[in-house]
Amino acid sequence: MKILLIGASGTLGTAVHRALTARGHDVLTAGRSSGDLRVDITDPDGIAALYARAGRVDAVVSAAGPVPFKPLADLTPDDFRAGFEGKVLSQVELVRQGVSRIAERGSFTLVTGVLAREPIVTGSAASLVNGALESFVRAAAIEIAPQRVNAVSPTVFTEDLDRYGDYFPGMPSVDLADVALAYVRSVEGAQTGQVFIP
Amino acid sequence: MKILLIGASGTLGTAVHRALTARGHDVLTAGRSSGDLRVDITDPDGIAALYARAGRVDAVVSAAGPVPFKPLADLTPDDFRAGFEGKVLSQVELVRQGVSRIAERGSFTLVTGVLAREPIVTGSAASLVNGALESFVRAAAIEIAPQRVNAVSPTVFTEDLDRYGDYFPGMPSVDLADVALAYVRSVEGAQTGQVFIP
Repeated sequence: MKILLIGASGTLGTAVHRALTARGHDVLTAGRSSGDLRVDITDPDGIAALYARAGRVDAVVSAAGPVPFKPLADLTPDDFRAGFEGKVLSQVELVRQGVSRIAERGSFTLVTGVLAREPIVTGSAASLVNGALESFVRAAAIEIAPQRVNAVSPTVFTEDLDRYGDYFPGMPSVDLADVALAYVRSVEGAQTGQVFIP
Repeated sequence: MKILLIGASGTLGTAVHRALTARGHDVLTAGRSSGDLRVDITDPDGIAALYARAGRVDAVVSAAGPVPFKPLADLTPDDFRAGFEGKVLSQVELVRQGVSRIAERGSFTLVTGVLAREPIVTGSAASLVNGALESFVRAAAIEIAPQRVNAVSPTVFTEDLDRYGDYFPGMPSVDLADVALAYVRSVEGAQTGQVFIP
C-alpha cells in the first residue's frame, strides 16, 4: 500500500516507519521539520497542501501530537487549547479532509494514549485530549465507511522509561515494536472504530 | 449544602434544580440569560466573576454545554473549536478555577453524554467533546483530592424523545428524574473520578 505517515521522525514514527516498510509498504513520510513532505498539522491549510502533494494514498497514519504536561492548577485555558489544536483538531482534520482524498477503502490510524483511561499527575490535558480522540474515532467510523478509522493507544514506551518512567509508577511499559504492530493491524486489517491497546 | 448550579434554566438544569432543592440544598442558579447569577461559561473571566459573586459553595454542578451536530464532512475546524470551548474548556475552567474557591471538601459535577461511548450520525463533535470530559474527570480527580469531581453521562432524555428520538434509533432513553438522581449521588456521595451513567 501507499501510506502517508505523519510524525515520521519521532520516537514512535520511526518505529512505525520501520514496521510498515518491513511489511513492504511504500511509506511517504511527513513532518514539521523533516521527511518527504513538510507539514504543520495544526494548520488546516497545511493539511490541505499535504494531501495535494501526497496524491492518492491507501492509508494515513499519524504518530504526532504534542500536549502540555503540568499540574492542573498551572494548566491555563491556552494550555488546554494547545493540546486540543496540537493533537485533537490536527488528527480530526487529517480524517475530515482525507475522506475525499484517500482511496475508496482507505484507512486512517490516529495516535492517542493510555492517559485516556488511566490518569497520572500533571496529565489532565493529555487525558482530555486522548479521551476526545478515542470517542471521535468511534463516531467518525460510522460516517466514513467503507473507509476506516482506528486509534492506537499505547502506554509509556519501554524505550522511554529512563526519561518518563517516573511519571508512570507501577504501570507496565510497552515496546515500540509492539506499538508499531498495532499500526500494522489497523492498516492491514479490516476493523474500524477501534482503539487498539498494544 | 450550598450548591452553585450552572445551566439552571435548561431542560436538564431544571430537573437537577428540582432534585437538589427537594433534598434540602440551597441552590444558587446561574445561566447565560437567567438565574441568580449571569455567566458566559465560555469566558474564563466570566467564570472568575461568577465565583467571586457566588461566594463559598460546597458543590458546583453543571448542566450546560452546547455542541454543534452536523455530518462529519460539514463539521469545520471552527465547529470542533466551538464544541471544545462551549462544553469542554468551560467545564474544565469551572473545576480549575473552582479548586481554590469552593469548600475544602467540595465537589464538582460536570455533564457529558452517551455519545462518548456510543456514536450517532452527525455526532462526531459531540462524541469528541464528551470523551474529552470523561477522561478529564478521571485525571483531575487524582489532583484535587479531598475535593471531588465526577461526570454525569446521560443518554437521550425520555422527555426529549419527540424532538431527538430519531437521532438515537433503538437506544434506551432515560427519565430526567433519574439523571437528576445521578447528580445527587455525585454531590452527596463520596466518590470521585467517576462517570455516572443514569
